[in-house]
Amino acid sequence: MGINLSNFLNSKSKSRKMLEFQDLNHLDGISISTVSANLYNNKRDDLVMFYFRDGANFSTVYTQSKIISENIKWNRNQKVKKIYSLIINSRNANSFTGDSGYKSMDNIADLISQKLTEKQKDDEEQPFKIKSKNIIFGCTGTIGEKYPEEKIKEKIPNLINNIRYTQNKYIWMKSALAIMTTDTYPKMAMEECKIGNDIVKIYGIAKGSGMIQPNMGTTLCYLFTDASISNEVLKKLLKKNVSNTFNAISCDSDTSTNDMIGIFSTSKVSHVKIKSISDKNLKKFDESLNKVMLNLAKRVVADGEGATKFVEIKINGCKTEIDAKKIAFSIANSPLVKTAIAGEDPNWGRIIMAIGKSGVEINQKKLSIKLGDLSVVHKGKISSQYNEKELSSYMKNSNIDISIEIQNGSKKFTVYTMDLTKEYIKINADYRS
Amino acid sequence: MGINLSNFLNSKSKSRKMLEFQDLNHLDGISISTVSANLYNNKRDDLVMFYFRDGANFSTVYTQSKIISENIKWNRNQKVKKIYSLIINSRNANSFTGDSGYKSMDNIADLISQKLTEKQKDDEEQPFKIKSKNIIFGCTGTIGEKYPEEKIKEKIPNLINNIRYTQNKYIWMKSALAIMTTDTYPKMAMEECKIGNDIVKIYGIAKGSGMIQPNMGTTLCYLFTDASISNEVLKKLLKKNVSNTFNAISCDSDTSTNDMIGIFSTSKVSHVKIKSISDKNLKKFDESLNKVMLNLAKRVVADGEGATKFVEIKINGCKTEIDAKKIAFSIANSPLVKTAIAGEDPNWGRIIMAIGKSGVEINQKKLSIKLGDLSVVHKGKISSQYNEKELSSYMKNSNIDISIEIQNGSKKFTVYTMDLTKEYIKINADYRS
Repeated sequence: MGINLSNFLNSKSKSRKMLEFQDLNHLDGISISTVSANLYNNKRDDLVMFYFRDGANFSTVYTQSKIISENIKWNRNQKVKKIYSLIINSRNANSFTGDSGYKSMDNIADLISQKLTEKQKDDEEQPFKIKSKNIIFGCTGTIGEKYPEEKIKEKIPNLINNIRYTQNKYIWMKSALAIMTTDTYPKMAMEECKIGNDIVKIYGIAKGSGMIQPNMGTTLCYLFTDASISNEVLKKLLKKNVSNTFNAISCDSDTSTNDMIGIFSTSKVSHVKIKSISDKNLKKFDESLNKVMLNLAKRVVADGEGATKFVEIKINGCKTEIDAKKIAFSIANSPLVKTAIAGEDPNWGRIIMAIGKSGVEINQKKLSIKLGDLSVVHKGKISSQYNEKELSSYMKNSNIDISIEIQNGSKKFTVYTMDLTKEYIKINADYRS
Repeated sequence: MGINLSNFLNSKSKSRKMLEFQDLNHLDGISISTVSANLYNNKRDDLVMFYFRDGANFSTVYTQSKIISENIKWNRNQKVKKIYSLIINSRNANSFTGDSGYKSMDNIADLISQKLTEKQKDDEEQPFKIKSKNIIFGCTGTIGEKYPEEKIKEKIPNLINNIRYTQNKYIWMKSALAIMTTDTYPKMAMEECKIGNDIVKIYGIAKGSGMIQPNMGTTLCYLFTDASISNEVLKKLLKKNVSNTFNAISCDSDTSTNDMIGIFSTSKVSHVKIKSISDKNLKKFDESLNKVMLNLAKRVVADGEGATKFVEIKINGCKTEIDAKKIAFSIANSPLVKTAIAGEDPNWGRIIMAIGKSGVEINQKKLSIKLGDLSVVHKGKISSQYNEKELSSYMKNSNIDISIEIQNGSKKFTVYTMDLTKEYIKINADYRS
């Protein structure tokens, strides 16, 4: 069941404690419905619709992989200003499915646009036509399997029938559950902040838990707000905040063909329309968004496949942030470091090895390493406070902090990862069977 | 006990079958002795001396890590034309041991030079002084532990007393055993070839089996020949042949601080002195050297920690060799690909994922993938011959061949790796305890 997050989620900030499902309630301008499209033999919901009845401003970032899934190709091709629906399915990635996979997106979007337009006619005083280009998709699951277009189309009417304009208290949790694959728990986060005189909400859901390597927004993450923020500003906010959240995590160094982060702004609550990144009203929102994203990113790591320990790796004193990031990920992705942590072995020599192989020039005589508060290496030598027994005892914690001081500049970077256990092998050796 | 190598070592070439210990016999100009310096509680030999009584031409390549062990620093500082002794110890890497670790090398080399000089006086008609700068070291084991200088010095007299000028049939095997750490079997290879009218020998020993990632010569590998080849030519030969042997393997993507490959030429047999890389006599030798090195590199992979399957990944049709290498290593280092192979799961979607994340531009419509002889993807589509049952049955083999056709040029690269199993975690979570 992943790791106890209490240590790093213990502040009073809502995003930092474990959320109860009641905490995420109605967010104006968004409707959510979920259904089982029988992709997992009817055992669970596997299809989610987010419906923005008046449209939403939006921005997205996608995987840096050179092979991208058909839904991401579809999304990229839609040059629109507003999104009316986001549809996500689990179990099938619609990746390496070629023209037929793309055509499926086209057909499903057609059907949804038709059905949502009918719904507009039923529900709205001034109904309008929702076009298929205003619909985008998230897909996650096995790569290379035929996309189950028919199964999904069959359930679109149910999905739309299930739409309620006020969310009940279960629906955010249900949406977070429906997008899971090998995750062991749903991932949600929320913050509230003021823009002008209005309190606006930022909600987010995400999924892991394999193929987690930072290269833009890893895994799926969807963020929603009732603030009023232009597409251009959303784009800048997303780019800025992804770098030290979803781009700062690694479970297994693999990057999916389907990675996607999207942010959607319904403009329902805030009276201040934000059109510039330098708007002074944006500061608190920016901070809150970062909290939500970091919280979700940490949850993805903490639920990384087979994880028993949550590991924070802080690199300080580098010449450039790129150097700090290289060292941090070299440690975070080293199977030898990760297995030592799994084995609760304070084998810090492997950290030395991982620093060395990062390729960053190091002055060994300035290098210091701490595990938690325990000094291990001080200025290139084994610390005078080095105590193997204390270290061994520290390694039994479920949260391990590794701090590295390079003393070669002022730039830093922090990466979040987990240990590498037999359970990871078990999960991934048996995934399809 | 690692993997059955019979499939790829089944030719009549001596380097391709499993060597019997008798196969490596006397190689003129080299003496070998081994001893236990009590580094493993006297359970096994852990210290080896190679003694070249008349000196040897030589060349070495070292780890690309930015943190290098003290023995490598020592070796690099000795600017000499001939080596008289190579000393290797296991259990302790002498890495991150600072000035004290370096001073240990200095002290041990002093003692050896004194004792070998005494031996010269006893044994030789024209004795000469062997200087400490003509001695180099290989070290492997835990990083960051104090180097056991006293324990090693204590055994130098025994090591030198054990020297015999004609090797008995066990001694190569014993040397390969003494340098092992987590290896499960010793690694030796040999070839013979003609230079002019003389048959010369090339012998090699190597060790794995963790921290195996290609960045020059990974792991320890020592090569010996009785041919007469200049230092300059040895350097060029080593550089050329390391690229498609030791730089083409990966077990766990980690690079050691101690990696070292050395080649030593005693000039005892060959009447042709080779001073130029373009010498026509060198062709056969070059080929034979490559066979010995590839054989040892494959043995290192096949004995990779926890390995149950040997995996060959061939990338064809790239624009550049660098592109082919990037794709090959992206697949070879993907934990998801490696666990799928461990689980005998033909989950080729993960191969697609790993190709994508390599960063190399791919035309998906030209991409083809084979597992063994079975076509999986043909020109961007699931192959018409795709048969899940046949594929599943293929995955049960202990040798898995993955062939990728990119169809974007004529360059290629082959990488050798193994699967990722629970046993790897077990070995590395419990290494020190």
